[in-house]
Amino acid sequence: MTAETRPVDHVIAQARAFLGDRITTNAAIRDQHSRGEDTTTPVQPDAVAFAESTEEVSQLLALCHRHGVPVTAFGAGTSLEGHVTPVRAGITLDLSRMTTILEVSQEDMDCLVEPGVTRHQLNDHLRDQGMFFPVDPGSHCTLGGMVATRASGTNAVRYGTIRENVMGLEVVLADGRVINTGSRTRKAANGYDLTRLIIGSEGTLGIVTKIRLRLQGIPEATSAAVVQFNDLKGCVESVIAVMQLGVPVARIELLDQAQMRACIAYSKLENLEPLPTLFLEFHGTEAGVREQAESVQAITTEMGGLGFAWAADLETRNKLWTARHNAYWAALASQANSRAITTDICVPISRLAEALLGAQEDVDASGLSCLTVGHVGDGNFHTLILVDQDDPTALDRAWALDRKIVARGLSLGGTCSGEHGVGIGKAEFLETEHGPEALAVMRSIKTALDPKGILNPGKIFRN
Amino acid sequence: MTAETRPVDHVIAQARAFLGDRITTNAAIRDQHSRGEDTTTPVQPDAVAFAESTEEVSQLLALCHRHGVPVTAFGAGTSLEGHVTPVRAGITLDLSRMTTILEVSQEDMDCLVEPGVTRHQLNDHLRDQGMFFPVDPGSHCTLGGMVATRASGTNAVRYGTIRENVMGLEVVLADGRVINTGSRTRKAANGYDLTRLIIGSEGTLGIVTKIRLRLQGIPEATSAAVVQFNDLKGCVESVIAVMQLGVPVARIELLDQAQMRACIAYSKLENLEPLPTLFLEFHGTEAGVREQAESVQAITTEMGGLGFAWAADLETRNKLWTARHNAYWAALASQANSRAITTDICVPISRLAEALLGAQEDVDASGLSCLTVGHVGDGNFHTLILVDQDDPTALDRAWALDRKIVARGLSLGGTCSGEHGVGIGKAEFLETEHGPEALAVMRSIKTALDPKGILNPGKIFRN
Repeated sequence: MTAETRPVDHVIAQARAFLGDRITTNAAIRDQHSRGEDTTTPVQPDAVAFAESTEEVSQLLALCHRHGVPVTAFGAGTSLEGHVTPVRAGITLDLSRMTTILEVSQEDMDCLVEPGVTRHQLNDHLRDQGMFFPVDPGSHCTLGGMVATRASGTNAVRYGTIRENVMGLEVVLADGRVINTGSRTRKAANGYDLTRLIIGSEGTLGIVTKIRLRLQGIPEATSAAVVQFNDLKGCVESVIAVMQLGVPVARIELLDQAQMRACIAYSKLENLEPLPTLFLEFHGTEAGVREQAESVQAITTEMGGLGFAWAADLETRNKLWTARHNAYWAALASQANSRAITTDICVPISRLAEALLGAQEDVDASGLSCLTVGHVGDGNFHTLILVDQDDPTALDRAWALDRKIVARGLSLGGTCSGEHGVGIGKAEFLETEHGPEALAVMRSIKTALDPKGILNPGKIFRN
Repeated sequence: MTAETRPVDHVIAQARAFLGDRITTNAAIRDQHSRGEDTTTPVQPDAVAFAESTEEVSQLLALCHRHGVPVTAFGAGTSLEGHVTPVRAGITLDLSRMTTILEVSQEDMDCLVEPGVTRHQLNDHLRDQGMFFPVDPGSHCTLGGMVATRASGTNAVRYGTIRENVMGLEVVLADGRVINTGSRTRKAANGYDLTRLIIGSEGTLGIVTKIRLRLQGIPEATSAAVVQFNDLKGCVESVIAVMQLGVPVARIELLDQAQMRACIAYSKLENLEPLPTLFLEFHGTEAGVREQAESVQAITTEMGGLGFAWAADLETRNKLWTARHNAYWAALASQANSRAITTDICVPISRLAEALLGAQEDVDASGLSCLTVGHVGDGNFHTLILVDQDDPTALDRAWALDRKIVARGLSLGGTCSGEHGVGIGKAEFLETEHGPEALAVMRSIKTALDPKGILNPGKIFRN
């Protein structure tokens, strides 16, 4: 090392002692870790460390803390808001090898997993035990990433988001100390809720190394259905009516005409038309599922639904939900050479029609190619704005449209992010949404827990 | 004022400007605010301030912050853990006059209330609108107090605790700044979860001045039932089986023999015997309620339940649940001149029999009069230890028993407090439960938000 050795070089050299070749400056690996599935400008970290244990994470963080080197956690790299882009370089801490399912309890319907476990891996593991984990973002993301971004998915309308389904965490703090948060009980009034503070903190307050999750019993009966509409208005008003009537649907997903066209092509949904569509699922007892479906059918028929196509058998259901989960990829595939900006607004259910139909008007006025899909039972939808990578003005025009849709969402009492998180992409909206004083409180908590600001700098807060 | 004027005297004098005679040093009023419903040593505040608006709370806190004067929030005074005892005197901030229900939305099933609104007031207000607020501690507490202590009650097994039913808060910070937390949406991934941080912070991080609550639709059908058992074991094992089978009971409450004897006398439950008993309630559609009840009846019969007494009509149900909610008062009335210490452990459901039967053994060995009642579907129960106020050794013996029951709860993976909060009474257990590092993180958050330590000092943390 020369006299000009940078702090990060000290970290890399010293981390070799316990990580060996699992800390690397290989250019291809750094490039793979330069951003997620978003449109942020890629930034290569100085090195990528593949940790395999809490102890290694702790040692690495202690080192980075001592030398003031940024640390950006990385799981499956599926972030849509720039969370994993290491904007100030430093070390990217890849947790995707921490994939052990440590405990599963059928008696208490919970499990303990490492952060690199994906929801698919967990549900495959649980299948024979009559349980499942309900939170299902539309990507092969890790549970650590889901905790970090306060993720949800299609089942949240019934089972809640990851916020409601995490019981406790093991977290490595910025200086390497390890804490356990929460409790294995269904409820607790035992001091500050550090679990909920870490959930959604996007790797800026600590690195999650173990997660205790609540599990659900596989329902006695499951049934799915598809309803198509001639117009978006009837489609969204059906959703509002279903929710206001309190029907406990397990899933109620909306896909607009453009998104349906893309999904039909990508996932070969031959029986469906490119029309505004609801995908529905019902969980419960045989009688309960029948009751729910009858209620929804009555509502959608009244709102102009074109029939109610059942998907009762497992194969048809799987095809339907796989198509739904692949909506993002279907959208990207619908236009060559494109990436996407994704809005993620969430509004009170009574304002959903205004938000969604308003976004549609903005889209029409913009001239950009957009597709809309939403977890509409929660008031949350995504307008995917396709960005032609060869068009130098496209990205700016896409952001302008994104801002317009978000501003309307906020004006309707909504939030800029229902489930993707803030990252870089939504940071500009936080002050409008929360006000400067609440944001100052968040900053003061950040400073208290990470005084040197090494954990995922440049995210959530604009600098 | 003399040269010896204390800081609190400055606060009192200056607060007169905006509170008038709503800040008082009247001895009787100070005495009423010297403790809650617990056994802590009473401490009189220097003055009691009755705030009627956020602006007044803000002005008062800014004053107290400037002068370094402690502020203890007070609602209905029903704390069981010393939360409202102003251990370092100063100002007690009584919010019980802030009783306005500001908004109710049937469309979005939510409402906005001031902190002095009680759950009874809210539910009376909502009754005609087909909605209710489900969180129901067994006292006439305020919603502000419930937020502060992360309260729950008999319905939590189905509807969650107040943690799951608060959407956002208005909070006055230690220095008088006002923030809004959360969102009016069903979910949000929009930065640190300040709402959940404030819930359960027991007035140590800020004073809650507005609360946005999620409401529930009144179920189409409701039915209640009572099952008695010859022994506690069959009773608790029935609960475990019901929960493990995933029956979505709305309430499943256990009362032991002693508690039943007290409730029969206090609430005139002539048809019931002093035996271990389950009180149950089912919510849903007509068919759903029937299915649930049949499942539970089959389980309890197998576990030795002595019949299944229906309480389908509203009057019988109300009598039953009023008796349940008055269990604490029934216990106190069962022995003259007594106060009570209340354990509040909560354990994973698989360990409930060990926790409850173990507590019973400890009680038997102690020679103290105890009554047990529990939100057992959540793994939470209270052993009320009666303390004869004329027996100088009784309080110490009661605390020794309390420690034994809590220690077993912790060793079974449980928490020292399911719903009453930490206050003074449970502070000694927090380090064992969370570990010193997690407790240090909580302290660092406390310091970040309340650097002068004026908000409810001496609670949660032992000094």
